[in-house]
Amino acid sequence: MEASDVGADVTKLLEELSRFGKDPDGGVTRLLYDSAWKKAQRFVASAMHDAGLEVTFDEIGNVYGKLAGADEAAPSILTGSHIDTVRSGGHYDGALGVAAGIAALSRLKTKYGIPRRSLEVVSFCEEEGSRFPLAYWGSGNVTGSKDFEGALDARDSEGITLREAMFEAGFDPESFRQSKRRDIGAFVELHIEQGEVLHRGGYDIGIVGAIFGQRRYLVEVHGRSGHAGTTPMDIREDALAACAEMIVWMRRTARETGDGLVATVGKLEVTPNVANVIPGIVRFTLDIRHSDERALDGFCELTIRAFSLIAKEMGVLVTADCWLSELPSPMNDELSKAISNVCDHIGLSKLPISSGAGHDAGLFANVCPTAMIFVPSRDGISHSPEEYTSPEQMACGTEVLTELLYTLAYLEEAT
Amino acid sequence: MEASDVGADVTKLLEELSRFGKDPDGGVTRLLYDSAWKKAQRFVASAMHDAGLEVTFDEIGNVYGKLAGADEAAPSILTGSHIDTVRSGGHYDGALGVAAGIAALSRLKTKYGIPRRSLEVVSFCEEEGSRFPLAYWGSGNVTGSKDFEGALDARDSEGITLREAMFEAGFDPESFRQSKRRDIGAFVELHIEQGEVLHRGGYDIGIVGAIFGQRRYLVEVHGRSGHAGTTPMDIREDALAACAEMIVWMRRTARETGDGLVATVGKLEVTPNVANVIPGIVRFTLDIRHSDERALDGFCELTIRAFSLIAKEMGVLVTADCWLSELPSPMNDELSKAISNVCDHIGLSKLPISSGAGHDAGLFANVCPTAMIFVPSRDGISHSPEEYTSPEQMACGTEVLTELLYTLAYLEEAT
Repeated sequence: MEASDVGADVTKLLEELSRFGKDPDGGVTRLLYDSAWKKAQRFVASAMHDAGLEVTFDEIGNVYGKLAGADEAAPSILTGSHIDTVRSGGHYDGALGVAAGIAALSRLKTKYGIPRRSLEVVSFCEEEGSRFPLAYWGSGNVTGSKDFEGALDARDSEGITLREAMFEAGFDPESFRQSKRRDIGAFVELHIEQGEVLHRGGYDIGIVGAIFGQRRYLVEVHGRSGHAGTTPMDIREDALAACAEMIVWMRRTARETGDGLVATVGKLEVTPNVANVIPGIVRFTLDIRHSDERALDGFCELTIRAFSLIAKEMGVLVTADCWLSELPSPMNDELSKAISNVCDHIGLSKLPISSGAGHDAGLFANVCPTAMIFVPSRDGISHSPEEYTSPEQMACGTEVLTELLYTLAYLEEAT
Repeated sequence: MEASDVGADVTKLLEELSRFGKDPDGGVTRLLYDSAWKKAQRFVASAMHDAGLEVTFDEIGNVYGKLAGADEAAPSILTGSHIDTVRSGGHYDGALGVAAGIAALSRLKTKYGIPRRSLEVVSFCEEEGSRFPLAYWGSGNVTGSKDFEGALDARDSEGITLREAMFEAGFDPESFRQSKRRDIGAFVELHIEQGEVLHRGGYDIGIVGAIFGQRRYLVEVHGRSGHAGTTPMDIREDALAACAEMIVWMRRTARETGDGLVATVGKLEVTPNVANVIPGIVRFTLDIRHSDERALDGFCELTIRAFSLIAKEMGVLVTADCWLSELPSPMNDELSKAISNVCDHIGLSKLPISSGAGHDAGLFANVCPTAMIFVPSRDGISHSPEEYTSPEQMACGTEVLTELLYTLAYLEEAT
């Protein structure tokens, strides 16, 4: 197998795929079940077909391309990612994993013929949560690991329900639970890093140890608004000043905690937000992530306690509503070791890394042995038209994926 | 003179005045030259007329009511305030000073007849800066102490120029400079405190020592946005985290500085303002006020230097644009002493106080002896429908004003 060949295949597939949903600014917008999405997923199906794979759409619009193994009863080795995007997203997030999976299976079939165990590549219908207020509609249903009770009634920004959008796209909303699979033996996902650790360090490959767990909070600080000129400093109940103390505390404590923990206030809104009025109310978001569940819980509890103390000192009230809590997803050690061996074998530099972003692989981690391979993102930029990974870097990732799948499906005994 | 009588007159005048521009929420909106403003200013003119005063409109819509003195050549003693409001403002800010001036002159004329020196009450057309991006259009022109070069081209939120609005209201835009007066011997303004110092302390009267000078800045912090999950804490250039350090520094240093200094971040906006994205840009306002020019300058310089240091430490860039700089306006010591004597004479409790808000009196401070009398604002609330000062408190303020004007116009020799 020549790396340059699979690399060229992936680059070509990605270029073709990026035509669907192309924005004037060079970005790509493909939202679940919209017109660009439909064309893209049909294109993926035809590319799978051209690669000599058996193509099937499931109940919700995930597309599978299968290279059936000699042992029909053995669970499949699955690779892939998603083809939906954020609004004005990049060309690589998700799409790379789908294109690389197709290229890998195509190459393996051509070179080695029928594997011992079935190999499949999947293009998940949805991962980003860009259209409806839910995410992982693809992998969450396939693994059965998300509670999608009531999800069909979710509405997009134009008021269209998921049920309507799904029906419109030609799928049967009521049968979404039938897309669950129980015959997956392992899942491997190739993805861009979306951070700049590999880019800064000049590494070819990141081997993901865990996908961060995360907690999201909406914090509200209620003080008392007043005239900026006539209210002495010592009787103020300034919601923004209190919130500044909270942000300073959290950042410093997160840095002291270290061990990869990240804590962010990304969104903040002040009321009434007038130059000469002391802020009465501030609402802000917390996004806290870590690879270890206990460390994540500990930091979150510490933060909420500290916020309460700061609020008390500053004479304001604070509430923190945790509206999202996702457990960390540790990847499979043996698979990660196998990826490491492949890198050594090919001669690629590699780095153990955590994934701060969520991925489809996270949904599989509790269901079957799961691994993730990262390739660098230029300057760590993602979810943007500026997202970029070079053809050479994609070729390295695809080569690692192909070798790993070869090992898993052709060399190992089905268990 | 009975306090209850002038108090009742003021309460009645204010009630009548509050009909013009009444909002559904109970507040009042009278913007320079708009329909409610015109009706209110005409009502004031008729009230002056009913009080037996000679009424004149000047070139820009200020209304004067005059009680001519025996010494026609002596400069006038002027009292008054403004009748324009902020959007959805209260019933007392500005209007009280106008109503009290009319009531005082009416009572003095009835009781004592012609004064030695002329007494005048003025209803300034504009002080708040609510419609056009300029303030003190009334007192600034009368004193000639504002540079209104180009002001006629200022536009309101609907694109109407001051020139057009003025013409529409029946005034001659080009002659605005003719409204300047050179014959004012003293100015006294009665106003609500708009803070809670008198209310908290249970005082009847505040005697203003100085109107705070103020500086307003627009501060921009430029960092680098990035993924909240994939960007390690130690390589972030988080504009909001940097700005939080700045706010914390400023509040703590302002409190340590003491001496009445107030420093406020009232408006703050984050870009892109998304929960899972590290803030790339934050823009916020600074509003810093103090009664002493050197102390104000010193604190502002210290703040800008500290912000630069914080920015450097945090790996972000900061710029601070000072777009408003007003000097402190010290009130006249002799007039303030006279107010204090009047309070003692009547038996009212009094407190020396600074004014954190700007007032028409500030424009007169460099032109003639000027004084301000404050009455309490319930809970310090102002610029709001909740603004409240009781009839008894207004009566006390009006009685002090009346006695002071009596002293100045009837007892003292014109100089």
